[in-house]
Amino acid sequence: MKSIMSSFLFVMFSLFLNAQFTQADSVFVKKFYEMALSDNAAHNDLKILCKEIGNRIAGSENADKAIVWGEETLSGIADTVQKMPVMVPKWVREKNEYGAIVIGRKKLVIPVKALGGSVGTNGLLKAEVIECRDFEDLKKKGNEVKGKIVFFNKAFDPVFINTGSAYGNTFPIRSDGASEAAKYGAVGCIIRSLTSADDRFPHTGAMSYKSDVPQIPAAAISSVDAHTLHTKLEMSKVFFEMKMNCELFPDVEQFNVIGEIKGTQFPERIIVVGGHLDSWDVGEGAHDDGAGIVQSIEVLRLLKRAGYKPACTIRCVLYINEEFGNDGGLTYADSVHAQQLNHIAAIESDAGGFTPKGFSLDGTDEQVEWLKGLQNFFDPYNLYVFKRGGSGVDISPLKNGKTMLFGLQVDGQRYFDYHHTDNDIFENVNRRELELGAAAMTSLVYFLDQREIKRGE
Amino acid sequence: MKSIMSSFLFVMFSLFLNAQFTQADSVFVKKFYEMALSDNAAHNDLKILCKEIGNRIAGSENADKAIVWGEETLSGIADTVQKMPVMVPKWVREKNEYGAIVIGRKKLVIPVKALGGSVGTNGLLKAEVIECRDFEDLKKKGNEVKGKIVFFNKAFDPVFINTGSAYGNTFPIRSDGASEAAKYGAVGCIIRSLTSADDRFPHTGAMSYKSDVPQIPAAAISSVDAHTLHTKLEMSKVFFEMKMNCELFPDVEQFNVIGEIKGTQFPERIIVVGGHLDSWDVGEGAHDDGAGIVQSIEVLRLLKRAGYKPACTIRCVLYINEEFGNDGGLTYADSVHAQQLNHIAAIESDAGGFTPKGFSLDGTDEQVEWLKGLQNFFDPYNLYVFKRGGSGVDISPLKNGKTMLFGLQVDGQRYFDYHHTDNDIFENVNRRELELGAAAMTSLVYFLDQREIKRGE
Repeated sequence: MKSIMSSFLFVMFSLFLNAQFTQADSVFVKKFYEMALSDNAAHNDLKILCKEIGNRIAGSENADKAIVWGEETLSGIADTVQKMPVMVPKWVREKNEYGAIVIGRKKLVIPVKALGGSVGTNGLLKAEVIECRDFEDLKKKGNEVKGKIVFFNKAFDPVFINTGSAYGNTFPIRSDGASEAAKYGAVGCIIRSLTSADDRFPHTGAMSYKSDVPQIPAAAISSVDAHTLHTKLEMSKVFFEMKMNCELFPDVEQFNVIGEIKGTQFPERIIVVGGHLDSWDVGEGAHDDGAGIVQSIEVLRLLKRAGYKPACTIRCVLYINEEFGNDGGLTYADSVHAQQLNHIAAIESDAGGFTPKGFSLDGTDEQVEWLKGLQNFFDPYNLYVFKRGGSGVDISPLKNGKTMLFGLQVDGQRYFDYHHTDNDIFENVNRRELELGAAAMTSLVYFLDQREIKRGE
Repeated sequence: MKSIMSSFLFVMFSLFLNAQFTQADSVFVKKFYEMALSDNAAHNDLKILCKEIGNRIAGSENADKAIVWGEETLSGIADTVQKMPVMVPKWVREKNEYGAIVIGRKKLVIPVKALGGSVGTNGLLKAEVIECRDFEDLKKKGNEVKGKIVFFNKAFDPVFINTGSAYGNTFPIRSDGASEAAKYGAVGCIIRSLTSADDRFPHTGAMSYKSDVPQIPAAAISSVDAHTLHTKLEMSKVFFEMKMNCELFPDVEQFNVIGEIKGTQFPERIIVVGGHLDSWDVGEGAHDDGAGIVQSIEVLRLLKRAGYKPACTIRCVLYINEEFGNDGGLTYADSVHAQQLNHIAAIESDAGGFTPKGFSLDGTDEQVEWLKGLQNFFDPYNLYVFKRGGSGVDISPLKNGKTMLFGLQVDGQRYFDYHHTDNDIFENVNRRELELGAAAMTSLVYFLDQREIKRGE
């Protein structure tokens, strides 16, 4: 009965909130959606970012170009644009990576991608392969590992309904596999790519070395080649050859790019939207996170074009280097703390440019209840996720118990088909799916701004 | 206050229903999803249907092959498989279709597709082009139309949130454009394809002729070419050349394929799942409606593999010729009436193999309330649409005020990028999205079966 009563109260509360939706709310949100879906400005921006700049790993010349592009694009929209210096690592991969399965005198050359942060092989590395399912399996086989290349063959578990859960479940293999293998004397590490697709794209992504073990080279191979290698290992002794030239240089200075529309009523209250400007050094960084970048820029554009003058200050932040250390997000949060800026809310889009489902919120109970109150409003827009949950890597350092941290939730069934590969290209982002996300983010910013107006001084 | 009380009652009702979910419910649904996502049997079936048979317009040899394939595939799963004779039209397009924009002595050859059911051009047809936005615009320009080719340039309206609404809004141009133009003496009709994509694929689809006007040839051109033609027409007099050999032959006999698992408790109560086996004569009919076919077959397979013995009889029906007259659906409904079969429910999947959102139901208030009661259960499975709405073309003739008619609702933002084109191929169907749909349908069948058990004799 208690739960029935609390449901009753919740319904009353929701109705109370719904009753507060004004005609202006409906008109503005409709405008945001209609303009996004008609103008396709985010999609056009994405084409430029992907095709004229391409992938843009932090520390690279392409990331410099992307920063200039971000500044120029925002300067046509925002009241002010500034660059915030951020020190970022500079890890460089040379293009001539090579990998081959070797059995006796036969060689099968397969595509490999060094994991981000890996050391190079310093010439050709050749060693016998030992397959391990996971770290537990590695431990069992510990005394057979010395001098070999460990092949972690842990598949994405397909039974997770949300692919992000499968990613989280497999992630430690990529980040820590090399150091775990090195503990037992391995000379190299190859992993099955973190993907739900059966194809021949290896997926890169961040790894790191533990301080107390030797640094051995680590690379990803595709899911299909992992299957091939597994099959070969069932039949005979298998060697793997790999050659990767990659190197970590001293940190360099790059920038977060910040575009701002000044609030008319509460300029000191700030609502931030953003994504990360860097990508991995493969493909075009279209879904990860070109999509989040162009959607965040589009938020400012849509507010402006709809003639909405926000009471609060709305910032679009293009963070640099999410992928390999989150320097942009950390530096931004430091600056917010140092300047004692009042951030009402931060919204991140970094789950790919797919059909939006709604928003998750890392916040207080009262904030989560407010978010849930929006659900009915967004029913005609196919948004239905309005609940407590994670936000995003870039904005997570802003967590302080007050700032609402939102993550744009999207239909991510296809995300890990493209993630961190040469296949993460503009053509694989659907225009309507991308634009719907931009409109959803703009609408949330609108309601957050309205919330502040209702709260008053 | 009345609405608050009714909401309160609804919450109580939902809680009452939720309380009725058993552990077995959770276990079976989890099994359906896990097996679908692990085995990928629907996806494998789709590959065979698309790659070994390909497109399969009703009346064609390929449709014959698809019928044999359907029979064979179901015979490994169902208790019984039968074929139900259906008379279908046989419309044939020859491959050498030709279209060109002609200005003075310059020719720009562009891809064209005759609309389904169109007459041929009987040699080369060349005439001046007159552009009309829609039927109203045609009426205004009525006295300029004689002897010309009418070019209907009505774009998909991008502001509709659901692409199906844009399709519905543009559909009359395709189905009736030729006859409307012929009323004013036009000699041919070309239409801008019904699509949300900007590309060079023309989209075919059914059209029909009115009895009181001459039958003129009708074809689709791509959205990009429609834009080109529009631009040319702004600058000068433009002619269009087209050559299409297509012909309507007498009806032929083909078959609905029906696989059945006999109910253990109420074998006379029937729950039907299905999609249409035919496609247009382009691409591979992957989304339309290969997806619905393989998902429907997968429902029987998943029930069986999960060890669920349904109380009611579960039928999978592969309807023939949805695209050009709905003969399969009409014949099936006639047979149900003639045999006085008791159909509890029919479920159709014919919106593409995209991420499922839930189910719409064409049914009574009580039935819709029951459906809504499932929503909370399916929250972990990302299903959220449980509401009154349309079902599908094939099952709509079963409507009798008692049978519940469900449509699988999917995220259709990409559907009209592929619909009725050479681009509707296997590679454009995502494995996980397809399989999630199959699992959702199986779960609904399970709950419908459980509902009958609770209702008893």
